[in-house]
Amino acid sequence: MAIQETSQRIQSGEISPVELTRQTLDRIAKLQPVLNAYITVTSDHALEQARRAEAEIRSGEYRGPLHGIPYAAKDLFYTKGIRTTVGAKFLSDFVPDFDAGVIEKLNEAGAVLVGKAGLHECAFGITSTNPHYGAIRNPWDTDRIPGGSSGGSTSALASGQCLFSLGSDTGGSIRIPASLCGLVGLKPSFGRVSRYGVYPLGHTLDTTGPFGLTVRDTASVYQALAGFDSRDPSSADEPDRTPVLPAEPRLDGRKVGVPRNFYFEHLDTEVEAAVRKALQVLEELGAALVEIEVPDIEEFNQVVRLILLAEASSVHHRRLRERREDYGGDVRALLDQGRLIPATDYLDAQRRRREFNAAFYQLLTQVDVIAAPSIAVTAAKIGQSTVRVGGRDEDVRLAMTRLSRALNMTGLPLLSVPCGFSSAGLPIGLQLIGGLFDEATLLEAGHSYEQATEWHTKRPAIASG
Amino acid sequence: MAIQETSQRIQSGEISPVELTRQTLDRIAKLQPVLNAYITVTSDHALEQARRAEAEIRSGEYRGPLHGIPYAAKDLFYTKGIRTTVGAKFLSDFVPDFDAGVIEKLNEAGAVLVGKAGLHECAFGITSTNPHYGAIRNPWDTDRIPGGSSGGSTSALASGQCLFSLGSDTGGSIRIPASLCGLVGLKPSFGRVSRYGVYPLGHTLDTTGPFGLTVRDTASVYQALAGFDSRDPSSADEPDRTPVLPAEPRLDGRKVGVPRNFYFEHLDTEVEAAVRKALQVLEELGAALVEIEVPDIEEFNQVVRLILLAEASSVHHRRLRERREDYGGDVRALLDQGRLIPATDYLDAQRRRREFNAAFYQLLTQVDVIAAPSIAVTAAKIGQSTVRVGGRDEDVRLAMTRLSRALNMTGLPLLSVPCGFSSAGLPIGLQLIGGLFDEATLLEAGHSYEQATEWHTKRPAIASG
Repeated sequence: MAIQETSQRIQSGEISPVELTRQTLDRIAKLQPVLNAYITVTSDHALEQARRAEAEIRSGEYRGPLHGIPYAAKDLFYTKGIRTTVGAKFLSDFVPDFDAGVIEKLNEAGAVLVGKAGLHECAFGITSTNPHYGAIRNPWDTDRIPGGSSGGSTSALASGQCLFSLGSDTGGSIRIPASLCGLVGLKPSFGRVSRYGVYPLGHTLDTTGPFGLTVRDTASVYQALAGFDSRDPSSADEPDRTPVLPAEPRLDGRKVGVPRNFYFEHLDTEVEAAVRKALQVLEELGAALVEIEVPDIEEFNQVVRLILLAEASSVHHRRLRERREDYGGDVRALLDQGRLIPATDYLDAQRRRREFNAAFYQLLTQVDVIAAPSIAVTAAKIGQSTVRVGGRDEDVRLAMTRLSRALNMTGLPLLSVPCGFSSAGLPIGLQLIGGLFDEATLLEAGHSYEQATEWHTKRPAIASG
Repeated sequence: MAIQETSQRIQSGEISPVELTRQTLDRIAKLQPVLNAYITVTSDHALEQARRAEAEIRSGEYRGPLHGIPYAAKDLFYTKGIRTTVGAKFLSDFVPDFDAGVIEKLNEAGAVLVGKAGLHECAFGITSTNPHYGAIRNPWDTDRIPGGSSGGSTSALASGQCLFSLGSDTGGSIRIPASLCGLVGLKPSFGRVSRYGVYPLGHTLDTTGPFGLTVRDTASVYQALAGFDSRDPSSADEPDRTPVLPAEPRLDGRKVGVPRNFYFEHLDTEVEAAVRKALQVLEELGAALVEIEVPDIEEFNQVVRLILLAEASSVHHRRLRERREDYGGDVRALLDQGRLIPATDYLDAQRRRREFNAAFYQLLTQVDVIAAPSIAVTAAKIGQSTVRVGGRDEDVRLAMTRLSRALNMTGLPLLSVPCGFSSAGLPIGLQLIGGLFDEATLLEAGHSYEQATEWHTKRPAIASG
């Protein structure tokens, strides 16, 4: 059940937050052995928060739509008194003594943290097959990955083990698992949501944001999270407009950019068909589709790769030297590559990045949003290392981040919305790209699309078991 | 003669801008063979600007204190139709097709550009012994360096070959030559003055600013230069207060921080005596001297060195590969070092920088300005490679930047004001460090100090020849 209906029934007293939390913890107990979505389940903490929420609501102190709602936080958000592993062995005993900025905000909103969700080791990868905490599984097919790095957050949400969740996105880590698990995921504008108390990966690329079952749910959580935080040096104090999300979908007068190059090349045919159909829906809703030419993403994927390798290595290289055996093989290999990058190449890449960004900012003066697939393929199997797309074999990691990672350079807000299923029953995601600090228009477009379709009403069988 | 008196007499019609420009060009013709302050003398351009200024002033269109005033610009400011060499061989024929942001501003103010001043090759050094355009000489002793990298700008101004000049400061390149040539030099806050059309050296450290014969002159030019420029991505849109510069010096109620560590260690004894005397003057003017502890500058000098080597190499490494022989030996050696810096070390250095900055910002909540020497020594001889300070031999470049370069990391405004002479008749500079975007308080403090002393009235013999 979505936040929207639940919160109305919590406010009216029809649903007890304590009871809802108990049910959620029961589901976690049942599904954790199957999906491994959580690294730490915070039962006592959750029940205490739920009891407090219930008492407040009974005494008329209703805090808003997240009051009493159970949620999961990716295990790289610092939680006071609750261990925060970042999916890493070297942090397996790390217990922060303060809450991340967004956790503080959710405390104020009265939300109930039921657990710390699993992730790819150090958030540096998209398979979520964590060598220390086990592989996380996709609720739509437990032989498959949920995507990453925020795979635990989406596996938990799609299977009913929470009502919303938090992720972070450095190269696609919100959009990819949202897409592969049939959820809505929002990567807000760089600087919009606090990174205070969030373990870093690529400090010029990292963003944090929400997952929801619907765009409206995602927007509710986004609004609770957004805002300036002086403790985060990259936080931006920019105005934000409340999105208008009417039940009746309409996109009259909206211009939707459709890339003629790159984003529709080398796609899985079922992914392409679903996204093309989504474009038709947008047009039927009144949007004007405008063909656009995007910069050479193939090239800029190399640019962002270099920036991320260098920045991630900067976070880890001292520890990698001291505790090399603590890292899994794939992350270690990436960090080793990052250590070899000369500073001049990094600075060159940052210079190229400005050109790339300028091109995208320019495009977004011509259209309201840009529409593209979130990922070129559907969920790979756990352990699968290559994937065949458009007649060629690609590394799974590259194939899955090909359409997402360069966009992190721009700081633009990015939304993934469910837009169909493959014949094997695997979810497909539509990626919408919005103007800088214009999350409102992006959420409005996503909401209208969603209201005109029924994809968001589908749940995996495991969720109703 | 200072701008202040000259401009009054220009406005009244007593001095003709054309005549003043002619006299200035005559002085340049006479002193260029001795001091080599200019790379390009812009006689025709200057006379045209002077004629226009004269016509405007005669018709009552007086633009303000810089109208009709001859100035020199360091040869890394782009000048439309006038070659801009950056002191480099590979740019010896480079003629920009647009003016730098600050040149535009001076055009609007009606100032007259008489020439492009020499500099250390690529602005990457402090001796100004340029291998392609010859050594620039110090007007106080022509066997000695004027300092750098903006050595031509200060050699020209101190010898009467212009009435003000422009420089840039990445690690001391305004404060060092100001100090060694007995002038006032202001490095404004990072982001305060446009870098549009300024050839880069270290893009997170570079700043541009004015030299003047007095603090008042320097403040006049600064006010013409300051302000937001959307074409410069690092430009800051911060409020600026007009400094109040009364004839009667007073510093009642001002707190002046005096570092107990680092800044007064290992100084030339005459430099130390002059700066200690300056502190006494500040106290006599009513300022409260507050002993402060600064971060470990020795360590942070290494941090900024690494940042600058990497950033400068990023500007030059492709050209260095293709046209290695076009670079002088010292710059080439630095660029080669920069190329070897791993990105992770660069990013670590930027992280350390934030700690350093936080410490300085904290100090500047406790005091209004911090006072220290600009350089540990007086001007070295041309060709001199080491200098003996406090009983130990130091590399000239390190000795001369030891007190200046780490401060560029902070973005704080920095002022060098003459505060005495060595027994050999070489100028000594007092460095004042102000709060971020608080140039006003800094200029007020410098002005009061200057008014209480007579150092700014001294001119080298060559200037009156």
